[in-house]
Order: sequence, then C-alpha cells, then structure tokens
Amino acid sequence: MLDVCLFGAGLIGQVHAANLARHPRVRLRYIVDPNREAASKVSALTGAEIADTQTVMNDRSIRMVFIASATRTHADLAMAAAASGKAIFCEKPIDLDLKRTDQCLAAVEKAAVPFQIGFNRRFDPSFRALKARLAQGEIGAVEQVIITSRDPEPETEEALAGGGGVFREMTIHDFDMARNLLGEEPVELFATGSSLVAPHYAKLGDYDTAMFVLRTSSGRQCHINNSVRAAYGYDQRIEVHGADGMLRAGNRMPTSVEMSGAKAISRDKPYYFFVERYAESYAAEIDHFITCVETGRRPEVTASDGRKAMILCEAALASAKSGRFETVRF
Amino acid sequence: MLDVCLFGAGLIGQVHAANLARHPRVRLRYIVDPNREAASKVSALTGAEIADTQTVMNDRSIRMVFIASATRTHADLAMAAAASGKAIFCEKPIDLDLKRTDQCLAAVEKAAVPFQIGFNRRFDPSFRALKARLAQGEIGAVEQVIITSRDPEPETEEALAGGGGVFREMTIHDFDMARNLLGEEPVELFATGSSLVAPHYAKLGDYDTAMFVLRTSSGRQCHINNSVRAAYGYDQRIEVHGADGMLRAGNRMPTSVEMSGAKAISRDKPYYFFVERYAESYAAEIDHFITCVETGRRPEVTASDGRKAMILCEAALASAKSGRFETVRF
Amino acid sequence: MLDVCLFGAGLIGQVHAANLARHPRVRLRYIVDPNREAASKVSALTGAEIADTQTVMNDRSIRMVFIASATRTHADLAMAAAASGKAIFCEKPIDLDLKRTDQCLAAVEKAAVPFQIGFNRRFDPSFRALKARLAQGEIGAVEQVIITSRDPEPETEEALAGGGGVFREMTIHDFDMARNLLGEEPVELFATGSSLVAPHYAKLGDYDTAMFVLRTSSGRQCHINNSVRAAYGYDQRIEVHGADGMLRAGNRMPTSVEMSGAKAISRDKPYYFFVERYAESYAAEIDHFITCVETGRRPEVTASDGRKAMILCEAALASAKSGRFETVRF
Amino acid sequence: MLDVCLFGAGLIGQVHAANLARHPRVRLRYIVDPNREAASKVSALTGAEIADTQTVMNDRSIRMVFIASATRTHADLAMAAAASGKAIFCEKPIDLDLKRTDQCLAAVEKAAVPFQIGFNRRFDPSFRALKARLAQGEIGAVEQVIITSRDPEPETEEALAGGGGVFREMTIHDFDMARNLLGEEPVELFATGSSLVAPHYAKLGDYDTAMFVLRTSSGRQCHINNSVRAAYGYDQRIEVHGADGMLRAGNRMPTSVEMSGAKAISRDKPYYFFVERYAESYAAEIDHFITCVETGRRPEVTASDGRKAMILCEAALASAKSGRFETVRF
Repeated sequence: MLDVCLFGAGLIGQVHAANLARHPRVRLRYIVDPNREAASKVSALTGAEIADTQTVMNDRSIRMVFIASATRTHADLAMAAAASGKAIFCEKPIDLDLKRTDQCLAAVEKAAVPFQIGFNRRFDPSFRALKARLAQGEIGAVEQVIITSRDPEPETEEALAGGGGVFREMTIHDFDMARNLLGEEPVELFATGSSLVAPHYAKLGDYDTAMFVLRTSSGRQCHINNSVRAAYGYDQRIEVHGADGMLRAGNRMPTSVEMSGAKAISRDKPYYFFVERYAESYAAEIDHFITCVETGRRPEVTASDGRKAMILCEAALASAKSGRFETVRF
Repeated sequence: MLDVCLFGAGLIGQVHAANLARHPRVRLRYIVDPNREAASKVSALTGAEIADTQTVMNDRSIRMVFIASATRTHADLAMAAAASGKAIFCEKPIDLDLKRTDQCLAAVEKAAVPFQIGFNRRFDPSFRALKARLAQGEIGAVEQVIITSRDPEPETEEALAGGGGVFREMTIHDFDMARNLLGEEPVELFATGSSLVAPHYAKLGDYDTAMFVLRTSSGRQCHINNSVRAAYGYDQRIEVHGADGMLRAGNRMPTSVEMSGAKAISRDKPYYFFVERYAESYAAEIDHFITCVETGRRPEVTASDGRKAMILCEAALASAKSGRFETVRF
Repeated sequence: MLDVCLFGAGLIGQVHAANLARHPRVRLRYIVDPNREAASKVSALTGAEIADTQTVMNDRSIRMVFIASATRTHADLAMAAAASGKAIFCEKPIDLDLKRTDQCLAAVEKAAVPFQIGFNRRFDPSFRALKARLAQGEIGAVEQVIITSRDPEPETEEALAGGGGVFREMTIHDFDMARNLLGEEPVELFATGSSLVAPHYAKLGDYDTAMFVLRTSSGRQCHINNSVRAAYGYDQRIEVHGADGMLRAGNRMPTSVEMSGAKAISRDKPYYFFVERYAESYAAEIDHFITCVETGRRPEVTASDGRKAMILCEAALASAKSGRFETVRF
Repeated sequence: MLDVCLFGAGLIGQVHAANLARHPRVRLRYIVDPNREAASKVSALTGAEIADTQTVMNDRSIRMVFIASATRTHADLAMAAAASGKAIFCEKPIDLDLKRTDQCLAAVEKAAVPFQIGFNRRFDPSFRALKARLAQGEIGAVEQVIITSRDPEPETEEALAGGGGVFREMTIHDFDMARNLLGEEPVELFATGSSLVAPHYAKLGDYDTAMFVLRTSSGRQCHINNSVRAAYGYDQRIEVHGADGMLRAGNRMPTSVEMSGAKAISRDKPYYFFVERYAESYAAEIDHFITCVETGRRPEVTASDGRKAMILCEAALASAKSGRFETVRF
C-alpha cells in the first residue's frame, strides 16, 4: 500500500482523486488545494485529509505525489517533491517556460525519483492498441500520421487568459501523440492558426482553429487539426498510414444504439469531453505509474516527453507567426 | 453504509464481489461459499469475512444479501433471508421448479423485503437507452423484436449436466428482454432446437442451437436466436421495429481500432463473454438495488419477472417437443 | 445478337426493358402489354416494337422471351413460348396455383427450352459474394440463417386485392434465399402473421407483419421476418451463422455522407425500394440468362426453384393458420 | 441526338467511351487515337469510326469533342475544336504550362463554346451530396476541410516520366475539391513532399508522399494528404468541419458483406482505383456536360476551375521547395 498525496482539486484533480480512491494498492492520504471548498469536496469523496504542501513534503510516509494543480505551481511542487525523494506524477505542462522546465527536470534527475508526465492519451485502450499493432509491424514502416483533436466548445475568456494558450494546453497532447506514433523525432514543424470560432482567442493573441504539419528527418509526415469547437462533442481520432496499410482509432460513443427513422439512420455522438472520453486512460496512467514505482520500472511517458512536447509548442508558435517550416531543436 | 453478504464465490459471484467492493455506499461484510478456496479468493480481494449461512442470517446488521450461489440453493437462501428481513438480490433462476419458485416468492412477499432478480441485461447502457427511447415513442408502437443471443462456446458436459438446460440458463435472459421490449405479455411461444454444435447437449436431452417466436395478444412478434457457439465472441444484439422506424443496439468491442490492409478492413471482434460484455450492467444492477433499498423504491426487475421468464422457458421446452405454438399462462 | 421480346410494361417490366436496351448482346425487338400507354412508354425508351402475343410466338427470330406481365398470364405465356421453342425468363411466381405451375413446368421440360425464374436477389452482388464465401467454407457448416425483408410501405388495397398475398408475393423471395443459403432443403416450416400496419391486409385475409422459422432435416434453422412497412426504406439483410463465424450482408445506401451534429451522427437511410436497391441484381440476372442461352449452360435459378418456393408459401399459409410446424413436401 | 468525337482511347478514354456509348442522347461517331490498337478496341465496343483529327474538326455535324488524349495534346485539340465551334470536354490538366493554358482558355472564350474540365469528383454522388448539404447550411460556415487522397500503388517509372508530376496529376483533383468546399479562394498554400514509397519518384524530382495546408483570406483551412500507395486500395475521403458540425464522405466498397471470424470482424476494402471508385461520377460529368450543351447552361466546372487548380499546383511546387506558405495569385 503506497501512501500518496494529490495536489489540485480542480476538474482534473477530481478525476485523479476518484481513480486513486478506487485503486487497490494506494491510499490517498492527503489532498492539497488553496481552494478550501474544492479540497473539501475531494476529501469528502475519498477520505483524504486536507493538508498544506509543507506537511506533505515533510511526511516521509508519502511516497508519491500527483500534481494536478495550477500550471504555474507544477515546477515548484515537483522540485520540492524531488527534494523529499517522492515519486512524481505531474500533469502537463511542467511549466510554460522552457528554462524553468529544464531546471525542474534537472532537479528531478538529480533526485533520481520516478517521474511520469500526464499524457493520458498514451493510455487510451484504443490508441494503445493501435500503437502496439504499429510496433508489431502490422502496417510496416510509418509514412503519415493524421491526428484529429477538437474540443467540444471554446474556453471562457477568463479561463483562457489564465492558461498557456491553445498550443501549449491542447495541441501539446497531439504533439506527444505525433512523437509517440511517428517512430522518429520531428525535425520540422509548420503551423497556421485562425480566428473563426470565438473572438476572445484572437484578442488574447491566440488561435481557435489550427492546422499543423510535422516532418521527421527521413521524411515521415504528420498532420494535426485542432478546433476549440465541435458541435458533436470531443473529437479524438488517429489515423496512421504505413507501407502495408492503415490503422485507425476513433471516438467513443456512450451507447451502441442506432435509430433508423424516416429521415436518416442515426447513432450517438461521441462523449462530450475528456473526462468521459478518456475515463479509462486516466485510470490506466495512474495504475501504470503506481506499478512503475512498485517495481522500479521506468514510466513509459517521461519528463523528457513533457519537455519535447513543449519544444514542439514553441516551434508551432514561431511557425504560426513566420509562415514557414520551423526547425525543431530538442 | 449498508452491510451486505454475498453468497457464491464462483464466476458470477466474483463479478458481484468486485462491484460490491467498489461501491461507495455498501460494505461487503461476508462471503459464503462451501468451496473454501473460492471463498478465500473473494475474501482476499475484498476484505470480506468468510462465514456460514447461519451466521449471516443471524447477523441483524446485514441488511442485504446477494445470492449468486448454485441455482438449487437460491430458493432456500432467499426464504431464509426473507425470514430474517433482509433485502434480497437473487441471480436467475429463482429455482428450476416452478412450484418451488412460487413458494419462494410467496415467502418473500409475506416478508415484504425488497427483492431484485439478476436480469443484468436490463441495466446494459445500450439496451437501457434503447428501451428508454422506445418508451419515449421514438419509433411508435412496437411491431417486432429480434434478439440475437449467442454464447462464444459450449459448456463442458460436466457443467451442462449440473444446470437447468440451455432454455432455463441462457434463453431465460432473452425471454426477459422480450417481455421488457414487447410492451405486452407474450401469449404464445414457438421453439425449435437442434444439435449442431456439441453432441453432449443432445445426449443430455438439450439443444445447442435454437430459434423462438413469441407472440402477444395484439399480434406483436418477437424472434430469438440462440447458439452455444460464436467463433467471434459473445453476440448480444437487439433490434426493435415500430411503426416509425427501427432501434438497434449492438455488441461492444474492446477498442475502436480499425485496420485497412491488403485483404480487407478489419476491426475488433466483440468482447469474449458476459463478464466483459456486461461489466457495466453488473455494476449498474447492483447500484440500482442498493438505491432501491436505501430509498424504499421498488426494483425495476422483480421476482415476478423472474417467475414469468421461467414460465416462458417451460412453454419453450414444451413447444420444442410438440412443434406447435404453445399457449403461455402466467 | 439475340432478338428478344418482353411481356409486361409495368414497373418490373420497365426495369427489365431498360436493362435489355443497354445489354450489348441482345436486341429488344418487341414489347407486349395490353395497356397501350405502358407499352408505348417502353417502346419510346427502347425502340422496341409494340406487338401482340401471337405475332411474337410466330416470329421464329425471337429466341428469348421475358415474362413480366400479370401473374395470371405467366403460365400461358411460358407454355406458348415453350411450344415455340423460345428460351423463357419468367418473373415469380409461375402461377399462384401449384397444379398449374406443375403443368407449366412439364411443358417447359418437354420443350427442353432454357428457363430462368426471376429470383433477382440471387444476383445481388453482396448476397452473391456472401453465398460464394459460404460455399468456399469461410464460416464452416451453416447452422442458422436470419433474413430480414421489409417493404417500405403497404400496398394499396386495390393492388393487394389483385395479388397472391404477402407470402406468395413477398416472402417467396425470402424462401428462395433461405433454400439458397441453408445448403439443405427445409423440411418443416412455422409461420405466424399479424395485422399491425394496414387493416386492409387483414380484411383480405392477409398479414402485414410476419415471422417464419424453417428447419432442415439435419436441424439447420432459418428465421425470416417480414413487414409491409419500414419507415427508413427497403430493409434487406442477411446473416448466416456457421461453425466458424458469421457472414452478413446489408442494405445499400445512396451515399456515404455522414453528418455529425449537435444531436447525433447520422447517415443515409437505405434505398427506398427494390428498383433502386436491386438495380444491379436486375441487370445481372438478365445477363446471366442471356449468357446461359448463348452458351447452353443451365441457369442457376430454375423452374424447380420457383416451384419449391411456392410450396414453401403454401406451407407457410397452412402454418399461420394451424399454429404448428408444417411438414414441407416438395 | 448529339454527334460527338472522343480523342484518346487510353484508360480514361475507354471510361468515357463506355459512358458515351450508353448515353441515350449522344452518338459516339468518331474515336481518334494515334495508337491504332487502342482506337480499334474502342471502335469495336462502341461502333465509333476511327478518324483523324482533321476529319473530325472539319465535320460540322460533330457538335462536341471529348479530349482524353495525352496531356500535351489537350491545348491544341481544344483550340482546334474551339475554332470549329465545337463544345469541349477536356480532361485535366489543360496544359502543364500556365501560359499555354491561358492561351488556350483565351481561344475558348473567344469562340464562346461550352467548355467543361474533367474534375469528375465534383460529380461523385457522395461528394456532391456533401457539397449540397454544405450549401444548404447544414453545418454552418466552413472552418476546416480535410481531404484524404491516396492512390493504390505507384506509377511505373516510365509512366511517371511522361507525366506532369504528382502535384499536377494527382493533387490537382484535391486542390479543385478544396476550392469547391472551402467557399472562399485559398490565398496561401504550404506543401511538403517526401520520398518514402518508390525511389523513382525522387529520382525524377518528384514526391511520393505529401501533405498540404491551404488557407483562405478569412482564415479557413484545408489539409490534404497524398500518397502514391495504399495497400487497401484507392482512398478518397472528405471531411468538412463547420460551426454546427461535421460532414464526411467516404470510400465505396464493392459489397456490404461483413465476416465475423475468430480473429476479427472484416469487411471489403475500398474499390481498387478510380475507374471503379468513380464509375458514377464519370457517367455523371458527361451527362452534365451534354445537358449543358443541350440547354445552353454553363457547366459547373469551367476552364477557370482548371486554371486555378493549376496555379495551386505551382504554388505547391514552390512551397515544397521553399518550406514556407506561398501566396496564391490567381
């Protein structure tokens, strides 16, 4: 039984809290969140004790921390946890600033504690099966990857203003998936962003609609399309083309019910958003990390993956401005 | 927090044990099973104490029992639980003998304890959504129901010999679903059974392949097809035709991965068997019962539903022999 | 170049006329129909000359006749054509009366002219591919066949009154398909019919909604469901279960367009009715017959197939009344 | 009845020949091809007379010409036909050289003869239905278009050497479709090409794998992915995202047969290549042109569409070299 602490009782923190509470091999001991109400809610549902950061860091029985707090606190918490010798599961991004990211990762490396970055989609059963079949050579060498990733609706202006922008908050997952599937690191990246959905994105210098092309050294290609709006719900699909065929993985629907009526045949639209769509992957990523800590194995998704995805975000921001293929330097 | 006891640590008992252990509003206090090894396994996974029937029945803190033991023990356990004032969740069938079933149900009714029969498919999210949309009139009045229900592989001769036969063990679920969807009680039933898959079924006077036609008083019709073998896994589909269209619900696949190769486009076959296919429905039926007990509401699937499905089994056995529409008398 | 005559300029006659006009190896010389207007229409579209039966039968250059006239005229026309040594393509049924059917078939056999019955569905590319894969043993021995066959809307009372009833006009195709796929002749047949859609069916002693179970000597089973109404269009599906899996063939949709909207994901409903749905099979059956006549090969669908399907219709009518498995005697 | 001449008896010429021979309102009078064998084949199948260009141009009864000859002959033939006052259906591209294209279009315009460019995909029933529903506002304003367009296998080195390169021969169709669906003209275009499939493409300075991003003035975006190889057959799909949802159109499969076996559920792969996949669109584009000539209506796909698609090809070639968004100037 591993004693763990969760930082952050917001939306994603609640998802982790529920999964930690159900996990047979951990005990969720502490919840830390400056928002007392949010912390209380998690505490009530899971039995976790509300604590402050110092208490947790000083408590040597706490072997793991899950950092799902505000982005700006990630690096500090990770470094404190590293200093205390605790295993760290950290939501992406590590930090919006690359230098600070590197500083944090250096501290983690020095402390030699297990670290996993929260790229949950790597643990989605369908994407994972796709990757495994790719790795088994089912379609031969990869040639093109096409990633569709669309949120159901725009963020509010308030939420948006507090974040790192669409590329760093949303596309970062797709960049990680591109790296995960291309089988080679991207060396060039092209991005273009538009303002077609919600004017407050443009007002904040951000994009609500974007397309990307990535290219590896051998010439493999990846396209990503993003939008902050999809009337039919969260749209998360992957298509990989190889020498011997195509592997695809698609959306998940709540039910299999199909209605044949006088106008059309209709079926469920996909799940509304990430909490429902990726329910399985959130549970699986946590289980993976716990197992890694127990067995001493290295997590599949490392700090370096978090850092590289951030570098792709930077290249994308540059390309969207320059209108040209930007070189990626990890 | 409701303290509960589970009778039966076999395959289905283990499914219930896992769901009870995860349920936030119950405590799985006891597991009862004459098979010490099976009981220990459940105990280890859930923390439930291994007990004997008498202890449980005498323990007034136990408010609910889940009966998932051998069929022949259902009626005795249910009657004992009723006598002790405990709420009863009982796997189908209540008993293979209709008289004994009636005797048991009389005892339950007299004790006025909540009773739910384990027709888990009623709680499958897709079948449930289909039923709800039917009830909302989406396709108008029901005219025909078509139920496909096929097991992945035959039972062993040993397992088969100990059971109630294919109609009472397998088709009983389909008969319940037919009643659930037709909107009227069946008044006539036709059945035909064959021996095409595994000779030991015929040896035991049973069928491995069967088709059924049910008819209600107004002339609504239902077809059921059963087989004890489906190379591609558990096949569980429903199709309802009404005046204004058709509603269908289909199988569940492990992933959404699709492979386009040189020979064909292929996707996952359905889940292998009921434990995986109906994972959600097993959790949901238990949650429903717990909620009913807590709130005093009447369970949606009652003892009477269990009894009526049994009567349809009897009619089916008669029809398969007589070769004619048998009248159904509830 | 084969010179041919078409009898019947109604709906199905027009389908044949269009296919004959386009066929590169025949010349549609004559169209015969007492309805002058209908005959003129076909003549205008195809260049065929309007003629009377006697002229056609006397014209030795006419090598083939296509009989798509009213059912009651089929037997006479076929016998006259046989007497004139012409190859005969005849729409089903040969006659509503079995004795007369036998008389007609005897005449055809005596004349030793090629004869093909218009079971067009045998030539549907999907059903044909399914059959071919079945024959190649892809799913092993057949165990169950499930045929869904539903018209988009009821016939008018007038049209219905002039016909042979739903079993002989509509189910006859399904009975032929059952024979085609079961791999053994049916020996028992159960039918039940209801009046749920259009009261004039019951008024004429007919059924608008029906289910069937057929059984072969080795115990293979077939279910057919019929309705004279399907809000979503013509519903024509086949499912065959064998020892090693299932083969299915489904409806055809006008386009592949799919709309993901705020309420659901929707796609085209199937084609409205047989002219569109079976466009390819009508062309293919005619091409098959022409090729058979040219090469001396025996058509795949013979007079005997027409006769046997009629016998199944008789058994179905008897069973729907008796409520029991009727023995089929070919 | 319009008398027409077909130039070109190669693969695409044969497709047009078959459709012209079947069309009820034209007579295919002449076939012109320097390859005597190819011309004879078309002549035998259709009854068209083999002729030389001069004869056709001098024959005033010839009202329309279909130019499906080698690309380098398109402009000359079109100008000669224009000078002779004949309506012109011309395969794309008009010419590989933009100046020559403009010269040809000027001649056509001066002669004021009807002209249609062979962008057959505009007439594909599914793409056409998608466009119509888009135009009806079903998904609101267009935001992103995603076009998948992949050939089944690479061209031979010989065939490739004689052509205009992948962008001008293959992507040109996708550029036209992008224009057709975006609702605004592209103003910027990014392209990247790789050599992953067949080295002779790179040897000839061409690409076998490519991705494109187009952008309109208001910021609408379009992605195109191309490959000269798809193990599963010709892959032609379109996806359009708008404010209110997504419209998609997909591949066509030969049959609807689905096999559920012990390993997977599989269905047909798409049709092998354009002749089968676009059979309906080839017939429809010709019918459209004939109807336009008969009625004096302007064809939907004009010379200007051919020219603009060529300009996009030029921009793509430039971008693939420069690595930047190239401005499109029509």
